[in-house]
Amino acid sequence: MSDPGVRAVERKIIRYRGGTGEVKSDSITVEEPLEIRVDGTSVAVVMRTPGDDLDLTRGFLLTEGLVKQPSDIFEISQCPSQESVTGIGNVVDVLLTNPSTVDLKSLSRNVYTSSSCGICGRATLESVFQQFPPIESDLAINPIILGTLSDKLRNAQQTFAQTGGLHASALFDTEGNLLLLREDVGRHNALDKVIGKEWQAGNTPMGDRLLLVSGRVSFELMQKALCAGIPFVVGISAPSSLAIDCAKEGNQTLIGFLRGETMNVYAHAERLLS
Amino acid sequence: MSDPGVRAVERKIIRYRGGTGEVKSDSITVEEPLEIRVDGTSVAVVMRTPGDDLDLTRGFLLTEGLVKQPSDIFEISQCPSQESVTGIGNVVDVLLTNPSTVDLKSLSRNVYTSSSCGICGRATLESVFQQFPPIESDLAINPIILGTLSDKLRNAQQTFAQTGGLHASALFDTEGNLLLLREDVGRHNALDKVIGKEWQAGNTPMGDRLLLVSGRVSFELMQKALCAGIPFVVGISAPSSLAIDCAKEGNQTLIGFLRGETMNVYAHAERLLS
Repeated sequence: MSDPGVRAVERKIIRYRGGTGEVKSDSITVEEPLEIRVDGTSVAVVMRTPGDDLDLTRGFLLTEGLVKQPSDIFEISQCPSQESVTGIGNVVDVLLTNPSTVDLKSLSRNVYTSSSCGICGRATLESVFQQFPPIESDLAINPIILGTLSDKLRNAQQTFAQTGGLHASALFDTEGNLLLLREDVGRHNALDKVIGKEWQAGNTPMGDRLLLVSGRVSFELMQKALCAGIPFVVGISAPSSLAIDCAKEGNQTLIGFLRGETMNVYAHAERLLS
Repeated sequence: MSDPGVRAVERKIIRYRGGTGEVKSDSITVEEPLEIRVDGTSVAVVMRTPGDDLDLTRGFLLTEGLVKQPSDIFEISQCPSQESVTGIGNVVDVLLTNPSTVDLKSLSRNVYTSSSCGICGRATLESVFQQFPPIESDLAINPIILGTLSDKLRNAQQTFAQTGGLHASALFDTEGNLLLLREDVGRHNALDKVIGKEWQAGNTPMGDRLLLVSGRVSFELMQKALCAGIPFVVGISAPSSLAIDCAKEGNQTLIGFLRGETMNVYAHAERLLS
């Protein structure tokens, strides 16, 4: 069960149609900053949709490589706040079990280790695989099952139905049952919320799970899925070149443009049952 | 004219339709890291689609508040590279005219000044408006013209037509003429490329321009448009709550869900001629 959060607010808008406007009320996706503090140091400010903020923080710290197992986090807390429009505090405080082992300066979502020969996609992938090794999984899925997933995702996206403005990440089992769905104004956040929850519950690596994301598949999403041990990633829209390279080397099946029964397979098609 | 870059590559994929697969070749959007170095210090690694990298760098440095005018950049250069799959170098070196005036440590795309009372959307906006004041502009646009823009954008998105995998940012004049279009795997990058080019050409603030973005409108996109002095922002999809708040306080007209002649106006409707 997702925590309540405040995912949508009502605002007055003007709807134009054929040159004439009409004032009405509309549901808007909430975007608010979340500051993540580790041992008192601010390590990131993420623009996110409030809700499941502790899972978001856990997933962020895990996929950034700052923690490895749930016991690495000694305490995690979030205070309510009157400053925030949602009443939910926008600061999460994390205390690590072994603070001395962590280099906080290394924590930056947009910075990858630059090899001495100069940065490139290859060096970026090598840097990732040094931290998160390729996935071993015997998962196999019937393509007919994949054809049912986009409708299941859309039907379950409550806040998207309200606002039309959210990314989603969803976990399915091999029978095509939806197990977990998270929505956020940021695509990375939606996935961090999913991964953070499963990691905390002791369910990673997720070698028997399939991840469906609502939009395009970037390198960073593949990197997060790799970190969580997910062998099968499906996007409703297009993957990038580096996402495909990452999938191939990470032994992850990557599918894009899932539209009903039609889909493109970009890497490791051997996990599709024929 | 956009520089050539390498925006798409061909890859072998398997297309599934109704349970049977067929191998074919497909165009894929290129995603590669770009490292931005300022006076020899690496300040950011951005995952971007190669092309117009100097404009991207300029727009990034401007909208992050590191530079104010083109003469603040003494030199900007990019070497070719055999490491990169595209042959285009993935490092841009910037030398500032007055290095001592700049605090490189303050440069972080995801970090906003946190007020002493705790971070919130309000504090985030105040921090932005301290740096980039609200826009003054008498721009007025006929809504009938707006109704023509989404088709113009789609027709001009060459790489999107090829790959289906790119975000776009486009500038229009008040007559609805498309002036500049940039595409990138990252929505922020597409806008940074547009802003960087116009800033370098001496065309900012752009008080008589309209910005159209291909997807959703986030707070960060509004912040960049504010920095460039753009009074009119239109998205094909939904804005977030903080994007609307930013538009209202920044005196920017914000429109979303532009679908032909239908659109929602979220802020400053007075710039729409009736």
